[in-house]
Amino acid sequence: MGKEITTREKDYSQWYNDLILKGGLADYSAVRGCMVIKPYGYGLWENMRDVLDRMFKDTGHVNAYFPLFVPKSLFEAEEKNAEGFAKECAVVTHYRLKTDPNNPGKLMVDPDAKLEEELVVRPTSEAIIWNTYKTWIQSYRDLPILVNQWANVVRWEMRTRLFLRTAEFLWQEGHTAHASAEEAVEETRRMLDVYADFAENWMAMPVIKGVKSPAERFAGAVDTYCIEALMQDGKALQAGTSHFLGQNFAKAFDVKFSDKENKLDYVWATSWGVSTRLIGGLVMTHSDDDGLILPPKIAPVQVVIVPIYKGPEQKALIDEHALQLKKTLQSFGIRVKYDDNDQMRPGWKFAEYEMKGVPVRIAIGARDLENKVVEVARRDTKEKQSLPLEGLAETIQQLLVDIQQAMFDKAKAYRDSHITQVDTWDEFVRLLDEKGGFLSAHWDGTEETEAKIKEITKATIRCIPLNQPDEQGVCILSGKPSSKRVLFARAY
Amino acid sequence: MGKEITTREKDYSQWYNDLILKGGLADYSAVRGCMVIKPYGYGLWENMRDVLDRMFKDTGHVNAYFPLFVPKSLFEAEEKNAEGFAKECAVVTHYRLKTDPNNPGKLMVDPDAKLEEELVVRPTSEAIIWNTYKTWIQSYRDLPILVNQWANVVRWEMRTRLFLRTAEFLWQEGHTAHASAEEAVEETRRMLDVYADFAENWMAMPVIKGVKSPAERFAGAVDTYCIEALMQDGKALQAGTSHFLGQNFAKAFDVKFSDKENKLDYVWATSWGVSTRLIGGLVMTHSDDDGLILPPKIAPVQVVIVPIYKGPEQKALIDEHALQLKKTLQSFGIRVKYDDNDQMRPGWKFAEYEMKGVPVRIAIGARDLENKVVEVARRDTKEKQSLPLEGLAETIQQLLVDIQQAMFDKAKAYRDSHITQVDTWDEFVRLLDEKGGFLSAHWDGTEETEAKIKEITKATIRCIPLNQPDEQGVCILSGKPSSKRVLFARAY
Repeated sequence: MGKEITTREKDYSQWYNDLILKGGLADYSAVRGCMVIKPYGYGLWENMRDVLDRMFKDTGHVNAYFPLFVPKSLFEAEEKNAEGFAKECAVVTHYRLKTDPNNPGKLMVDPDAKLEEELVVRPTSEAIIWNTYKTWIQSYRDLPILVNQWANVVRWEMRTRLFLRTAEFLWQEGHTAHASAEEAVEETRRMLDVYADFAENWMAMPVIKGVKSPAERFAGAVDTYCIEALMQDGKALQAGTSHFLGQNFAKAFDVKFSDKENKLDYVWATSWGVSTRLIGGLVMTHSDDDGLILPPKIAPVQVVIVPIYKGPEQKALIDEHALQLKKTLQSFGIRVKYDDNDQMRPGWKFAEYEMKGVPVRIAIGARDLENKVVEVARRDTKEKQSLPLEGLAETIQQLLVDIQQAMFDKAKAYRDSHITQVDTWDEFVRLLDEKGGFLSAHWDGTEETEAKIKEITKATIRCIPLNQPDEQGVCILSGKPSSKRVLFARAY
Repeated sequence: MGKEITTREKDYSQWYNDLILKGGLADYSAVRGCMVIKPYGYGLWENMRDVLDRMFKDTGHVNAYFPLFVPKSLFEAEEKNAEGFAKECAVVTHYRLKTDPNNPGKLMVDPDAKLEEELVVRPTSEAIIWNTYKTWIQSYRDLPILVNQWANVVRWEMRTRLFLRTAEFLWQEGHTAHASAEEAVEETRRMLDVYADFAENWMAMPVIKGVKSPAERFAGAVDTYCIEALMQDGKALQAGTSHFLGQNFAKAFDVKFSDKENKLDYVWATSWGVSTRLIGGLVMTHSDDDGLILPPKIAPVQVVIVPIYKGPEQKALIDEHALQLKKTLQSFGIRVKYDDNDQMRPGWKFAEYEMKGVPVRIAIGARDLENKVVEVARRDTKEKQSLPLEGLAETIQQLLVDIQQAMFDKAKAYRDSHITQVDTWDEFVRLLDEKGGFLSAHWDGTEETEAKIKEITKATIRCIPLNQPDEQGVCILSGKPSSKRVLFARAY
């Protein structure tokens, strides 16, 4: 019945693509590596965006908008940042097309319309923004600047995957400017906390907060903090990053401020971002072989009502109750859809909304109404129960809370059972293959060892968890002394 | 005191730029023709976007997101559309930068990373969207598709102006697909009505609904409907357009559907958009020589409270009342700011919020409090009155309604007094220079005459107003018979 989904066991990667495509979240497009975010997927993103936006504003941030293009000379100003992104930049070189004289009806790039300076399509906006901040900041009175931007960015990735890694993606990027290092670090950590709060309490996706090793840092950052989630195949996903940029961009763009004593100093910076990649993480955290499972708090549709009837008389009776129920649920702030499309059978609809991950399905039949009950099914556990119409909205409201919690608990139990302390190299290699997940192991702190481990096992240091007690040990690969465990995993 | 603004009389164009820059709406950027939308300007745009988005959803539309890039072969598929935009396209030709061997620390476009097919940065998205709709539409059951997109677009304009004409701008573009021409035309008109509703009832900007002459049509449209507003310098501004695209894009991208009788036909299309250009229109409709005047319904800050005090004791007393007042106003849904920044004097703040166009200013002094009153000033008329603290929130709420209405009435009176019926060529030419505004005149319906009038006077046909009675007359230029007046104006 309905659309076939590849099982996780058979082909995890195909399962993921099936969910995205058949669940109606996104489509491939005619542009290499770019996707179309379909209305259902975009509705999900809108809910996520609105919650995050509220959180940013509640922490004192405002939104602004900076140009899509970065002139090459600005792009290259912060050398490490430029080096990090140069290999994946879409570059605008011309500003006009013209009729192709050799090809009637076709166009060609007009060689007379070559730009004097090429424009990079922003892969991230530090350069264009700090070049602007230069004109906004003179004194400590102009600080802090707490600005966020919702935008599209382009990184020309060679291997792309829907939501997880696309050439163009939607994201938000916060760019703040501060009068001291302490304040900037505090901001970096505050936004990491906002991301963790959002991931756990809205997406029901448990995350580990940590700091990246130098090799995994954002290009141009002094420190990169991150939240790391665990997918059902045992691979980690970097779900959000918050960077302490030190004075690197202020120096590159010569942004100074005079402090209260009238002394000049470079401004301190942070940047932080999450993207539509989160949707990929959401899908892989919760879904099953029957389709998506979306957490109620951000699901575009929280409750779907499906009528089950024979003939117009039953339909009319059910309509009346269903529309009343819909209204009541809406008055509770619940996002509800009544699907009375008569082109499709109830069974098809059941499968469809399972596929789409709608948290709660209410089926109303004629006999149910006689008994003043309806059938309520929850998507996460597939449990069904017959519930009285009387007081149903309150019950559903509580059910949505329960589902949200159950989804988080389930994901957290899985994640927790996949953090394994490992003390030998053999065990490390064996567990990576046999169990996956995060391996908590000692590392000698050198880039050389980190690179070697990655080369041999494809596992990377996901993060050095925050608030982790010191512990003496020896590096799993080099045997050199180490004072802290770090988390390794294979990752998306 | 504070920032100088050029007067309208002295230099209208400079007055406009002063308002945008000094009012904190936007900034120039390092990218030719692109601007930075500053937090205050973006806050205004957010309010406008949120209202429009609600209106779109209330009329059955959903949001989605399509790629930023359009492969050249798709871009050129609908020939008229391609021809219309080819001359102003930013074109991505390469996907990588590399270190410049002759210039240490600098980057250059990597010639080895040339794209096989160039990518056009979308100037509008019909091509990429209809190429996608091809895969979404098979049968009448898939119709209508009512999709909107909030996005950035790029048109390489040679002469740019903040908000009014920038190389990159933010907009929404609705793209709908229908089973019949009637339904598509109905949609086109519905969205025109939505735009007019928004312009008049939210922006307080009166508009004339009409249809464009063939020469002014959107490239690829069968009919372009528009709303036209009038600026204070007597020039018209196209504030929004809604296009009936017929089957042009369906034919270009081979998008067919089978109807209920199983017959295949091409799908009917509309597209419609408004952009950040509206902000330019808003500014020029209402503002004066002291700064912006923003309509309360979309103003980022509706009420600002300024304390007037000497010493910390007075300050503490005023704080207490001001914060209570702020809370009460907020509970009425009013966007309010309490500016107790002690670095700036009240006079500076008065000028600043006048500049920023905050609709209502409340000044609270120590003596006021003794008398249980505050001073309330409205930005639009500059009237000040002393009002009792008791019941103030209700008074302010009503005042905001009154200001919104007064702003619309004033703009409408100006607009109405600048629609002039003209029946001779001499008068037409004279009034264009002496009075400006819309000239309602007969036109023979030929592109030749239209072009000649434009060439001689720089006036264009802004629209053929809807619901205008037929009237026999003769063309002001050619003297040939005409059955309808059209509106001419010089325009932005």
